Amino acid sequence: MIRLANKNILKIRTYKPGKPIEEVKRELRLKDRVIKMASNENTLSPSRRVLGAIKRKLNDLNRYPDGGCFYLKRAVSTMLRLEPENLIFGNGSDEIIILALKAFTKKGDEVIVARPTFLIYEIASLIQDLKVKVVPLKGFRYDLDKMAEKLSEKTKIVFIANPDNPTGSYVTGKELDCFMKKVGKDTIVFLDEAYYEFAKNMKNYPKSIKYLKAKNVIITRTFSKIYALAGLRVGYGVARKELISAMNKVREPFNVNSLAQAAAVEAVNDNKFVSKTLKLTATGKQYLYKNLESLGYDCVKSATNFILVNLKRNSKLIYRKLLKKGIIVREMSQWGLKGFIRVTIGTMSENKRFIKALKEV
Amino acid sequence: MIRLANKNILKIRTYKPGKPIEEVKRELRLKDRVIKMASNENTLSPSRRVLGAIKRKLNDLNRYPDGGCFYLKRAVSTMLRLEPENLIFGNGSDEIIILALKAFTKKGDEVIVARPTFLIYEIASLIQDLKVKVVPLKGFRYDLDKMAEKLSEKTKIVFIANPDNPTGSYVTGKELDCFMKKVGKDTIVFLDEAYYEFAKNMKNYPKSIKYLKAKNVIITRTFSKIYALAGLRVGYGVARKELISAMNKVREPFNVNSLAQAAAVEAVNDNKFVSKTLKLTATGKQYLYKNLESLGYDCVKSATNFILVNLKRNSKLIYRKLLKKGIIVREMSQWGLKGFIRVTIGTMSENKRFIKALKEV
Repeated sequence: MIRLANKNILKIRTYKPGKPIEEVKRELRLKDRVIKMASNENTLSPSRRVLGAIKRKLNDLNRYPDGGCFYLKRAVSTMLRLEPENLIFGNGSDEIIILALKAFTKKGDEVIVARPTFLIYEIASLIQDLKVKVVPLKGFRYDLDKMAEKLSEKTKIVFIANPDNPTGSYVTGKELDCFMKKVGKDTIVFLDEAYYEFAKNMKNYPKSIKYLKAKNVIITRTFSKIYALAGLRVGYGVARKELISAMNKVREPFNVNSLAQAAAVEAVNDNKFVSKTLKLTATGKQYLYKNLESLGYDCVKSATNFILVNLKRNSKLIYRKLLKKGIIVREMSQWGLKGFIRVTIGTMSENKRFIKALKEV
Repeated sequence: MIRLANKNILKIRTYKPGKPIEEVKRELRLKDRVIKMASNENTLSPSRRVLGAIKRKLNDLNRYPDGGCFYLKRAVSTMLRLEPENLIFGNGSDEIIILALKAFTKKGDEVIVARPTFLIYEIASLIQDLKVKVVPLKGFRYDLDKMAEKLSEKTKIVFIANPDNPTGSYVTGKELDCFMKKVGKDTIVFLDEAYYEFAKNMKNYPKSIKYLKAKNVIITRTFSKIYALAGLRVGYGVARKELISAMNKVREPFNVNSLAQAAAVEAVNDNKFVSKTLKLTATGKQYLYKNLESLGYDCVKSATNFILVNLKRNSKLIYRKLLKKGIIVREMSQWGLKGFIRVTIGTMSENKRFIKALKEV
C-alpha cells in the first residue's frame, strides 16, 4: 500500500451517518412506510415555494454554478445585516469546518473539542494531523471552564457546537462571554450553530454575531435543518472579512451547486415555512418528553429538533427492534453514550408511531 | 491577521471561472440573450429523462443524501465493468483531486504538473504546501518524456489531464504505456479524464482502466461535461480498492447531493443524449475550425468540446468586445497563453453568432 498523508488516516473511524430510508427498506425488505428519526433532519419536505425556485433552475444545470454565490450572499447578508464579504458558503456547513482547518492549521497545532459532540470536528482534525485536546461534557453540557483551561499558544481552533449535538443543550451568552475573554489572539473560536433557528429564542441563548469584530470567531449555520434542504448541501460561515478571505483561498471554485443556491435564496425569505417547522418541533418535543418520561426514560432538555434519551438498558437491541418496525433512530454507542438513543422530532403521527413501537419492544 | 496554515495561501491566485451568464447581464446591463462559450460546458440542457429523475427526488430534499452513493456506484460500476469498491464520488471530479492530495501527500512531497493545464492541480498542491515541479507543454501537448525525467522518490502524484484543458490535445496509449513503465511504486498517476467521452474514439486514445491493477492510478471522470450536469456537481474517481478506501477516509460524509446522485444514475443510461451531444460537438468543431482558419487564426486540434485559438493579437481586447456583444469566451492570459482564447463549442446558432461577432470586432 502507498504511504498515506499521516498515520491517523488508517485509524480514523469514519463518521457513520443515520441509516437512509432506502437502505433500511433494501436491507430489511420492508414494504411499509419507513420513518427516519435519526439524522436531525426537518421532517417536512421543502415548501412549494422553494421547490418552485429549484424547478426554475433545472434547464440551466448544464452550466457551472456561480462560484461566488452572488444572490445567496446578498440574501443572507441582508438577513443578518452584515456585508456579503462576511460570508462564505459551503457544500453543507461541514465544509466550512474543513476550510477553516485547511486555511489556519498545520501539523502540530492543537484544537480543543468537547466529547461527546458532533464527531466531524475531531475526525477532520485528525485527518489534518492535529493534536486534539478533548474535554468531556459536564451534566450533558459543554464545560467551557475546563475548555478554557486547555487553551495554550498552540491552540488554533476551539470547536463549540451551540446548541450541541447529540445532547441538544446550549451554552448561554454569559458563559460564552466569560470564555471569550480567555481566548488569545491566535486562537479561532468556531461556533457551530447548525440548530440556531431552533435555539435563538431560548433563555440567554448568545447573540454570537457580536463577537465577530473583536475576536477570531467563525460562526456556521446551515440550510439542512430548519430550511429542510439537507439533501442539497448548503451551509455558511460568518466571520471577519480577513478570515473569510483566507478560507476562500482554499475553497474549491464551484463548491455549492446551483440548485442549492436557488433553493436557499428562496428559503431565507420563506417565514411561513420556518414558523411551521418551529411549531411542529415545539409541539412534538413536549409530546415526546411527556411520553418518554412516563415510560421511565430520562430526556436531556433540548434546544433543538432532537432529543437525547437515556433508555438505561440495551439501546442497541432496542435500536434494532425499532428498525424492524420501520423506525430509524440513532443508537449512541458511536458517541460513547451507552444505553442512549437520539431521536429526531417528527410529525405528530411519526412521534406517536415511535412511542407506540417503543412500548412494544 | 491570524497565522495561515502555510505561506503559500496568501500568494495563491485563486481560480477564476468563466464569467456566469447572469453576472455578464448584471454588469454590462445586457438585455439580449447572452451566450456562454467559456467553461467547456455542454451547451445542451439535461434531457427530460434526467430532469424527470431530479423532479422525483424533490420531496425528499429534507433528508441527507446517501453518503455511500449506493445506486450511483452500482450504475457506474456496471457501465465500467468494475466493482463498486473501485469508485469514489465527489462534489465534481475536482473534489477527487483534493481527496487524493489529502489522503496521500504531506508537506515536502512533490507533485509533477504540466503547464499550461487545468489550474486546480497546481493551486490545490500549493494549498497543501507541496513542492510543484512544472513541465511545459511541447507543441501544445503533454511532454511525458520530460515529466518522466522529473520523477523521483519524492514524487507523490503526477497529474495528467487527458485530454488536456485548455489545449484539447491528448496523450496516446503508446505514450502513456511508455510513461507508466518509468513510474515507481510510491507514485500515483492521476489521470483526469473529464473529457473522456469526447475523446474515447480518437485514434490511439488510451484505455486507461487497464493500468488500475498493476499501478497506482486514479482516473477521474465527470458528469459536468458530456452529461450536462455541471450545475449539480458530481464526478468520480476510479482506482484500486485500497486507494479508494484511503480517499473515503478523508471524504466528508455527505459530499454528493441527492439530486446529483439521482440525475447521474439516469444520465449514464441516457445514450440518446450522449449521442446527440457528440454529434453536435463534432459538427460544431468542423464549422469552427473551418471558419476560424479562414479568418487566419490557428486552432489547436481538439479531442474535446472546446478549441484553443491563437488570435495572434490582443486577445484581452477581443474578449471584452465579444463580451459587450453578449458572447462569453475564455481569455487565456491566466494560463500564460497571450493572444489566445478558448472557445467552447456551442449549438450551431451559437457558433455562427460567435464567428459573426469575431468578424465584426
